[in-house]
Amino acid sequence: MTLENVSSQKSFGGWHKRYRHRSTTLNCDMVFAVYLPPQAEQGTKLPVLYWLSGLTCTDENFMQKAGAHRLAAELGLVIVAPDTSPRGDGVPGDPEGAWDFGKGAGFYLNATQEPWSRHYRMHDYVVEELPALVEANFPVSDRRSISGHSMGGHGALVCALRNPGRYRSVSAFSPITNPLNCPWGEKAFSRYLGEDRSRWREWDACSLMAQAAEQLPTLVDQGDRDDFLASQLKPEALQASAQAVDYPLTLRMQAGYDHSYYFIASFVDDHLRHHAEALKG
Amino acid sequence: MTLENVSSQKSFGGWHKRYRHRSTTLNCDMVFAVYLPPQAEQGTKLPVLYWLSGLTCTDENFMQKAGAHRLAAELGLVIVAPDTSPRGDGVPGDPEGAWDFGKGAGFYLNATQEPWSRHYRMHDYVVEELPALVEANFPVSDRRSISGHSMGGHGALVCALRNPGRYRSVSAFSPITNPLNCPWGEKAFSRYLGEDRSRWREWDACSLMAQAAEQLPTLVDQGDRDDFLASQLKPEALQASAQAVDYPLTLRMQAGYDHSYYFIASFVDDHLRHHAEALKG
Repeated sequence: MTLENVSSQKSFGGWHKRYRHRSTTLNCDMVFAVYLPPQAEQGTKLPVLYWLSGLTCTDENFMQKAGAHRLAAELGLVIVAPDTSPRGDGVPGDPEGAWDFGKGAGFYLNATQEPWSRHYRMHDYVVEELPALVEANFPVSDRRSISGHSMGGHGALVCALRNPGRYRSVSAFSPITNPLNCPWGEKAFSRYLGEDRSRWREWDACSLMAQAAEQLPTLVDQGDRDDFLASQLKPEALQASAQAVDYPLTLRMQAGYDHSYYFIASFVDDHLRHHAEALKG
Repeated sequence: MTLENVSSQKSFGGWHKRYRHRSTTLNCDMVFAVYLPPQAEQGTKLPVLYWLSGLTCTDENFMQKAGAHRLAAELGLVIVAPDTSPRGDGVPGDPEGAWDFGKGAGFYLNATQEPWSRHYRMHDYVVEELPALVEANFPVSDRRSISGHSMGGHGALVCALRNPGRYRSVSAFSPITNPLNCPWGEKAFSRYLGEDRSRWREWDACSLMAQAAEQLPTLVDQGDRDDFLASQLKPEALQASAQAVDYPLTLRMQAGYDHSYYFIASFVDDHLRHHAEALKG
């Protein structure tokens, strides 16, 4: 559980820091980033927003491009951004070097199939190991929320829905809502989880929402000029699942926006306020 | 003067757009980015802030990482970000592939020495050709301000000081204030301008400020944990030049900040307000 500080950069009066550590869940070294707002130096324990990035990303994309530090500094919110998959020479990747499977594409699940099952356990890393590490090493409370983009939006929804009591709120930008029924999900799940599609439902936000044991305030933003909207993201499927069980989902279709970080930056303040409200007290 | 639209992305209700065009000044194709705030669709002509990036950057760094669109959208400010040098296979670069000379390192001057003088004329491109193009193709007025980072901070100061009447205000983050007397400047100037150091003074902010024909509101932010502070940036030299002629320079040393875009993002709102105030009316 030793953390090696990779870098420290002052940002909006707080600090953006990156750490390397040995992950026992993933059996490899991992790097994550944390934004510590100025209030972290004042002795009170702060709530934490976990951010899960999308395909091909690392811990850096959100921190550099989302413009989230400004309001996090005002709200006193810690943000933790893990990498998107296990990493390193000892970790198997996609045999053809694809960008939508393997390294950079862990899909925030626990793989059951060889050779992936030894390393690809991002769900347990994000939900258990990383928060334990963060809560032992930084001035934070056990009040947690979770958000993410695209594959990470899927991750945020699934982590929240699978773990009642663990998070106070959830949100997502352009999430893969129904990986059971889209090409990205079918490719990844068939390899990580095997061909028995009945096991895939445990990692599908639409399926999980239909039998949710807890109702969390849920905000989803989706651009209507997102190239992946119809084929991969399917917000209408999530909307239908929510309506069937009266789940408190706010889905906002944003006119003109695409899948990029310009979209995320445009609405990230709304998401931070959504979480800060749920994390209060 | 044909502009080819490379991409369009909605951001904070406005648009981030990239364009390719043939530059007659630089004798090559160039790409620049423009942020058009929502007010650009309302028929009034908006003022423009030109942003000059630092070594190794392109038009993309500031747009992706500075977090400037949010307030620009509120203030009704257009932002234009050019590339940092001429580009393309026909343009000579550093023979050893260095990152601090040649491509990505045009230093915003007009080279006089072969083989650089045919393409490396970034000053004229930034001050003349690009604004003419922008003012002919977008809903903007001839009210201009200029800012930049590091090499681009040098560029902003020099463009403003050399061209009285052209800009309403100037600002810089971590500028190379005195390239006459620092390794980056000596390397670039000796090649672009030749060994006669008396000609270098025309491109040195400290020298130009000492004989400025116009006094522009000037804001400079500098982090005190910037690795390049003592060797390359020398804000105290600019401060001395300003004091000698009573130039309206506000130099702010920012405790704990480094040379990165986290520093820029932390203070970019102050710079946008500085320019918006000067650009009013």
